[in-house]
Amino acid sequence: MPQAIETTGVPALDRLVQQLTKLPGIGPKSADRLMHHLLSSESSDVLALSDALRSIKERVNLCKQCCHITEGELCNICNDARRDQGLICVVEESRHLMALERTAHFRGVYHVLRGRLAPLDNMGPEKLTVDQLLRRVQSGAVRELIMATNPTMEGDGTALYLSNILANSNVRITRLARGLSSGLSLEFANRDMLSDALDGRRDF
Amino acid sequence: MPQAIETTGVPALDRLVQQLTKLPGIGPKSADRLMHHLLSSESSDVLALSDALRSIKERVNLCKQCCHITEGELCNICNDARRDQGLICVVEESRHLMALERTAHFRGVYHVLRGRLAPLDNMGPEKLTVDQLLRRVQSGAVRELIMATNPTMEGDGTALYLSNILANSNVRITRLARGLSSGLSLEFANRDMLSDALDGRRDF
Repeated sequence: MPQAIETTGVPALDRLVQQLTKLPGIGPKSADRLMHHLLSSESSDVLALSDALRSIKERVNLCKQCCHITEGELCNICNDARRDQGLICVVEESRHLMALERTAHFRGVYHVLRGRLAPLDNMGPEKLTVDQLLRRVQSGAVRELIMATNPTMEGDGTALYLSNILANSNVRITRLARGLSSGLSLEFANRDMLSDALDGRRDF
Repeated sequence: MPQAIETTGVPALDRLVQQLTKLPGIGPKSADRLMHHLLSSESSDVLALSDALRSIKERVNLCKQCCHITEGELCNICNDARRDQGLICVVEESRHLMALERTAHFRGVYHVLRGRLAPLDNMGPEKLTVDQLLRRVQSGAVRELIMATNPTMEGDGTALYLSNILANSNVRITRLARGLSSGLSLEFANRDMLSDALDGRRDF
């Protein structure tokens, strides 16, 4: 049973507790503990956290090419001349890209769909970055697309949809090998599972 | 074993994760989860949290009378004409005051020492708000002081020190009854335990 938030009688503190309890995994007791910790922390630490929060909304935007999060025009990966720009790994979310990057196993670039097809949630292709992906393919520089959507119904459906609309392009379309256990979200897979999945990718 | 913090390649996000991991109970995995949550949250929510953090350092100060945290000159309790200004409950920290207030059992006012005597940590009386307390007692309006320091070595020592230097004043000095279990911090005591302790207070 969720506990009611106790008011402290100090509006600034009540506001902080209220905002903290909106975060995942932080209930009224944790929020209260964090508030007291922050109250007795150095001002510089609290202001650094405040500024760090503000700057993720003010400074972070999407890479013009792959739609990954970045602070500039292009993300570090698209900007990296050593990466193979002809090999694109298509993922649902930036956090999946980060999970793949942690393997240090993939030397191509990415495309972040920023979601997955989910008709029941009213998520159609127009809400994803499908148009940008098609434009990248039409530019002619792409050799292979690796579908690295989540191994779930919606992820598989999204990969199938993309492979269908790209069937007539001259691009090889592959998908990650099922070294992944079905239903597990990519961000929780370990490095070996992700490396195996990259190595064992197969044609659609 | 603490895990290393993974960099995301986006400085603003790395800074946020770094600041979040400074909080108690938040490790690299939780910080990463919070960062992704905040990234996909509404801007208004993130900015509200950022502002709430900033304002606890910019707007919250100490009550001129009792040294409890407040946004104005005097705290809500000192300002409340219905509270008995002749009965002062002396606590170590504002969070202990809040724990006592939650009982809704005490109708006097407070004095927050902002710490406890701890010679090994170099915490002497000059680092506490002892002078302010003596001035309140010397003003002549105080009838009774209830020592509500923590039932620990340091808390007891602090109460004993105060009762000694106030022995020649005409103020009754009492302490909370040991309805509290020794060693338990006040903020974790339940309402009944705190109410019993208030009722059973005895003379030093």
